[in-house]
Amino acid sequence: MLRYPTTTLQRTFRMTHSTLSEVVKTKFTPAPKLVESDLNPHTLVAKYAVRGTIPTMAEELKATLVSDPDALPFDEIIAANIGNPQQLDQKPITFYRQVLSLVEYPDLLDNEHVSKIFPSDAIDRAREIMSNLKSVGAYSHSKGVRYFRDTVSKYIEDRDGHPSDPEEIYLTAGASTAVNYLLSILTTGPETGFLIPIPQYPLYTAAIALNNATALPYYLNEEDQWSISAAEIEKTIIEAKEKGVIARCIVLINPGNPTGAILTPEAIAEILDVSAKYGLVVIADEVYQENVYTGVFTSVKKVMRDLQELDSEKYKNLQVASLHSTSKGMIGECGQRGGYMEICGFDETVVGQILKLASISLCPPVIGQTLVSLMVNPPNEDHPSHDVFHCEKLGIFNALKERSHKLYTAFNKMEGVSCQEPQGAMYCFPSITLSEKAKACAKEHNLQPDEFYCAKLLKSTGICTVPGSGFGQYPGTWHLRTTFLAPGEEWIDNWAKFHKQFMDEFRD
Amino acid sequence: MLRYPTTTLQRTFRMTHSTLSEVVKTKFTPAPKLVESDLNPHTLVAKYAVRGTIPTMAEELKATLVSDPDALPFDEIIAANIGNPQQLDQKPITFYRQVLSLVEYPDLLDNEHVSKIFPSDAIDRAREIMSNLKSVGAYSHSKGVRYFRDTVSKYIEDRDGHPSDPEEIYLTAGASTAVNYLLSILTTGPETGFLIPIPQYPLYTAAIALNNATALPYYLNEEDQWSISAAEIEKTIIEAKEKGVIARCIVLINPGNPTGAILTPEAIAEILDVSAKYGLVVIADEVYQENVYTGVFTSVKKVMRDLQELDSEKYKNLQVASLHSTSKGMIGECGQRGGYMEICGFDETVVGQILKLASISLCPPVIGQTLVSLMVNPPNEDHPSHDVFHCEKLGIFNALKERSHKLYTAFNKMEGVSCQEPQGAMYCFPSITLSEKAKACAKEHNLQPDEFYCAKLLKSTGICTVPGSGFGQYPGTWHLRTTFLAPGEEWIDNWAKFHKQFMDEFRD
Repeated sequence: MLRYPTTTLQRTFRMTHSTLSEVVKTKFTPAPKLVESDLNPHTLVAKYAVRGTIPTMAEELKATLVSDPDALPFDEIIAANIGNPQQLDQKPITFYRQVLSLVEYPDLLDNEHVSKIFPSDAIDRAREIMSNLKSVGAYSHSKGVRYFRDTVSKYIEDRDGHPSDPEEIYLTAGASTAVNYLLSILTTGPETGFLIPIPQYPLYTAAIALNNATALPYYLNEEDQWSISAAEIEKTIIEAKEKGVIARCIVLINPGNPTGAILTPEAIAEILDVSAKYGLVVIADEVYQENVYTGVFTSVKKVMRDLQELDSEKYKNLQVASLHSTSKGMIGECGQRGGYMEICGFDETVVGQILKLASISLCPPVIGQTLVSLMVNPPNEDHPSHDVFHCEKLGIFNALKERSHKLYTAFNKMEGVSCQEPQGAMYCFPSITLSEKAKACAKEHNLQPDEFYCAKLLKSTGICTVPGSGFGQYPGTWHLRTTFLAPGEEWIDNWAKFHKQFMDEFRD
Repeated sequence: MLRYPTTTLQRTFRMTHSTLSEVVKTKFTPAPKLVESDLNPHTLVAKYAVRGTIPTMAEELKATLVSDPDALPFDEIIAANIGNPQQLDQKPITFYRQVLSLVEYPDLLDNEHVSKIFPSDAIDRAREIMSNLKSVGAYSHSKGVRYFRDTVSKYIEDRDGHPSDPEEIYLTAGASTAVNYLLSILTTGPETGFLIPIPQYPLYTAAIALNNATALPYYLNEEDQWSISAAEIEKTIIEAKEKGVIARCIVLINPGNPTGAILTPEAIAEILDVSAKYGLVVIADEVYQENVYTGVFTSVKKVMRDLQELDSEKYKNLQVASLHSTSKGMIGECGQRGGYMEICGFDETVVGQILKLASISLCPPVIGQTLVSLMVNPPNEDHPSHDVFHCEKLGIFNALKERSHKLYTAFNKMEGVSCQEPQGAMYCFPSITLSEKAKACAKEHNLQPDEFYCAKLLKSTGICTVPGSGFGQYPGTWHLRTTFLAPGEEWIDNWAKFHKQFMDEFRD
């Protein structure tokens, strides 16, 4: 009855070896397989520590725990290496998921029982979305569905008090895709320099390596709450030029990853001033813009427009690409791969190239696009979901804020550890003073000192972190990054105990 | 009450211009903006015709129709340029969407009304999925959720009658992501050659350009149902080597895009034989493996294993990466961005590099991963959804098969047009004999002759296609690619009328 080829039908098709016998008759010595050294050298040098040595070690330990739950001195791995809230039991925000559920199966909208299951504003929102696209299963415009981009522009306008053009919004599969497009387009070769903060989120060094560009590190000042110095950046630009590297772009991560620091409007303005002087494209990685526990977030785009109002001539050529994501904030929907990029001030020939790259990837996931639109357009006060929504969001926010405080307090009580207060984001990046004995022992194990500490921590407590060397750090200092997403406090106590033992064991 | 920064709160924060006045005081002439010629030269040369000149023209016409519905000689644009079934009103398969709806909002599984709305097997499947992952909102392993990879391996084993290892399965955001990983890893520079069929799907030439590698075209034989010649491929390899280009990889698209041709097991075996001799990595683009209207699909992996059974020594070093996607077949879920790649026979150092690239992108969309798993594991005969599922799938299959036949018959009745029967995929790729007068007129308009035909077709009928030059074609021949996805037959009749007028207008 079935007239299309099912796997069942295909199984009845068995190629007889005899039909291939003519082919195998030819004689030759087979060529060898490719090995690592045959591959793209730029790929080989790229590193991504967030899923690097320590997390790989954690995976092995996890497998050990599955086969023998009593084999290790802990019951579970605490994945503090990556900002992945829902893996650590953070519950998704109900309103978002209700709407996604409806747009995945829009027949529900006509079901007689739907109002018993879904609140009316989720139903209304799903209807509104479905009136603006054929199906979440259709390719959208490569920039994303226009209706979703409209909601993003509206959000940006409300946030900044400056206009935003939906044609300058590109929806993306998380912020990583946007970074890859921009770095690929801006690189002409090793003579192209990207100014990146140290410490930085290693996606940037990885993408710079993959594109065979040159990283121009600028150090953040740890003692001064990881502050940024426009003077140091200008010095870096000038020194690079002497070595034949032209600074083409500066990456700002605000709130900072891994530092948790928040940039002041004045600091952003100083960086934009340098950018205007040297023609730097500014990549503003603002994925943690809702994770603000102390102080206020100000977008680079807002400061750019403010400066242009003050001096339109001097700042007329500013080029800013701002990134946001559904993976962070209180929404924490990493697996849905949603994000957007707003590109302001670029020449239209450059915009054309960005659009072409987006076209080659066809379109970002439409469910991720939908979620971006929900993130920037939550239920308002008149809507039945409003109270639940805000209660859930506030619950997540308060838990994050509280845990960030506990963790940073715990660090500052540990011997030889100092930690800046995380103003935002999801991470602590404490500095750890390691003894000569610990360093020597690390060397014996062919590990960096901070890697050695993280490996010991993992093997003793199950806590998986990322060594500071994966993010970059001032030479001679040692750090690690940990999220403060894991629930409970027991793991923090265990860490403190481990640390004491470690310090005792390796005291000089 | 709300203690996290909402947009409302942020609006109350208005930076006073005075705080920035110190910054604008510095004096300099601003650097110019970047223009196209400052950008990555490899990006600039990349082309992607499926969303190129003609589709861009169609977008403009669509905007015209919105502002003035009577402005053009047609009512709507028929988007035959891209395989995007659900944009052309193909209804999603219900069972898939029911399960996706449940996993997006798993609270439904505990709702008392759920069984009134969802069939029991959709509920059971959603429960099974949710017992294998924390949330579709969490990052998964960079290769995808292990449970989903298990279902893919099972499908491949059933299809091929050979083992498949879930550790060799990488879930991806559509097949494009897999192509990008592979091409990026395999390229060391312009001395790296990629054998690609001509005509080909332009993602390959685009990715080759972006990676600064060299395309080594091998022509398909149009008269012989677009067949492939191992002898010609070997000749191409040898000639390239003389010019300093080492063939490193061969791309097979089966069923063919844009040709619709299906490779026989013997043809695949001959290509694998050449690949073993020259150490070529084989990229088997098999995204249309379910779109088979005439003949039988055989996977490259199956032929690889068959050959290895016949002569294990000679074929021991074969390296095959097979790609599949949720975007095509009867599922047609392009916007969900699901796909997988099976990599067999690669050295473990190479596998490590592929995994690293996947890690840098964090993970494929988890909803897309879920859909891959549903695609390869449909409801079976004992399940309540079985009949509806197969009825929907068969309806789509029969409609595609019928329309492919009508379209190809219509082409072969048109003056100067010849079209091979599409055995598979979603496209016709007819050859069109264009007059000297038409070619001269195209030149006047600064267009390729086939581009000129497609532009005229679009402006007269609203049918948007892609010129053959976007896919590559034998020099001096002219083609176009059209999907046979658009419903109804009126557009086919309109095309025939347009063609007659075009031929009359440009007769030499």
